[in-house]
Amino acid sequence: MNITIVGLGNIGGSFAMSLKENAAEHDVYAIDVDSNALRNAEQDGIIIKGYTEPEEILPKTDLIIFAVYPLIMKSLVEKYGPYLKDDAVLTDVTGVKRSIIGQIEPILPEHADFIFGHPMAGRENRGLKYASGEVFKGANYLFTLTDRNKESNVRMLSSLVERMGFKNISAVSPEFHDDVIGFTSQLTHVIALSLINSDDVERRTKQYTGDSYRDLTRITNINENLWPELFIMNKDYLLDHIDRFKSQMDLLKDAIEAEDIDTMQEMMVEARRRYHDLHDLELPESNE
Amino acid sequence: MNITIVGLGNIGGSFAMSLKENAAEHDVYAIDVDSNALRNAEQDGIIIKGYTEPEEILPKTDLIIFAVYPLIMKSLVEKYGPYLKDDAVLTDVTGVKRSIIGQIEPILPEHADFIFGHPMAGRENRGLKYASGEVFKGANYLFTLTDRNKESNVRMLSSLVERMGFKNISAVSPEFHDDVIGFTSQLTHVIALSLINSDDVERRTKQYTGDSYRDLTRITNINENLWPELFIMNKDYLLDHIDRFKSQMDLLKDAIEAEDIDTMQEMMVEARRRYHDLHDLELPESNE
Repeated sequence: MNITIVGLGNIGGSFAMSLKENAAEHDVYAIDVDSNALRNAEQDGIIIKGYTEPEEILPKTDLIIFAVYPLIMKSLVEKYGPYLKDDAVLTDVTGVKRSIIGQIEPILPEHADFIFGHPMAGRENRGLKYASGEVFKGANYLFTLTDRNKESNVRMLSSLVERMGFKNISAVSPEFHDDVIGFTSQLTHVIALSLINSDDVERRTKQYTGDSYRDLTRITNINENLWPELFIMNKDYLLDHIDRFKSQMDLLKDAIEAEDIDTMQEMMVEARRRYHDLHDLELPESNE
Repeated sequence: MNITIVGLGNIGGSFAMSLKENAAEHDVYAIDVDSNALRNAEQDGIIIKGYTEPEEILPKTDLIIFAVYPLIMKSLVEKYGPYLKDDAVLTDVTGVKRSIIGQIEPILPEHADFIFGHPMAGRENRGLKYASGEVFKGANYLFTLTDRNKESNVRMLSSLVERMGFKNISAVSPEFHDDVIGFTSQLTHVIALSLINSDDVERRTKQYTGDSYRDLTRITNINENLWPELFIMNKDYLLDHIDRFKSQMDLLKDAIEAEDIDTMQEMMVEARRRYHDLHDLELPESNE
């Protein structure tokens, strides 16, 4: 089939590379405002041809993958509507879902099937030059299905991303998605930002860090044009997770203040249990 | 020289392995209550001989490395005092310094030179079987010198750990050490524990995590027999860092609540600047 990637940045470029490597029978095109990025991608052979406008390629496109900022999704879908092929399948990569689905569903042509998705893969650096199909290997993928999605299209898309190396491909409700992403992704970014910004820069901390500080601040190389938007679109769940986290931290803080070793040990034992569950490890029987 | 490692767990074992690999001209011995661990280490050739008591080996030992829980340091130094060689050098690996130095200095024999140190290397798993000299490569090392330390001994020890692969070997005051470690190590562990324990286990979060959640919770596989002690010994600095972190998080939380994009962007730009500084990276000129 013909696949058109809209937005050839880090994620869009990674899709193109991964498709070329893992599903080479498909013809991959791209639409982007940046004609240099398109030319580079053509020269690298990761797309067949790039376009700055949709008119020519969209009527031939079976699957459109939107890899763009959430704020411009709605206007793009409105603009692209007239050019969509009958039975075209559309998908996205947006990190929050309720808001996007609420914006897009009402303006979607009757015959188009938009299957909203979220590839949970790293994207520390921006732009096509940091794109790589490798980041998808072993990453999780969440689809948030709507009543309008056709089962055969969902199966097609699931099987495509599975071939690209994703595992744990799940379909969940938009509400559940935003709740769990508010916790695993947005809260962690709020924490990392708060940690690095609470450093006393006079101290020249760099010389005195261990792995833990580098681990907890790795995700602070963040795109400030994207994340405030994501935080705001999910603010109810995110604020709730921040409060739950702060409550847990206050319990531990109180235990430290009171020198309450038993409570601290209980929290650490529980944390280790959860750590082992998260990594599918068996808990050692004895302790030490 | 003869080096005796006291406590052949993960850190002590890693010292033995690294010494064998990088400073093989020294003869390495060990003291541990666990005679099985000693036999294993002898068979693996990472120590020459292991002892469960100090009488025989200490009088021949030039450098003693204590790799034991901080709570038992004082009683060990008291017990070992009579057996120390004249001009023996002692060092430790304890993660907090003011309290340990305060306990040890008054009971130290006149002729012994205790150079307190802190190798800032990962130790996710406990016990000799997870020991490895590799964890020291590129890690930071902090010495907290006292008035009693002889410069020639400090030079000897610094050069030894440098050969073991440590970099950024610094000498700082015990107060500065505890302040900065309270931030880079203890606060990060408090955060990671609070994060993983604030997860709703009913949600089966595991299927929905990206790298960020795994990064921020990696250090939760924590030794509950060690860390409460470390937190309590450094509670003044640690509580202060927790408060500073919470203030930063509240600023970001308020900005999310108010949908204040400008403030969020400023925080993210500042965080990225700090990230690039931490990793010695150049900030990209344009943004995107």
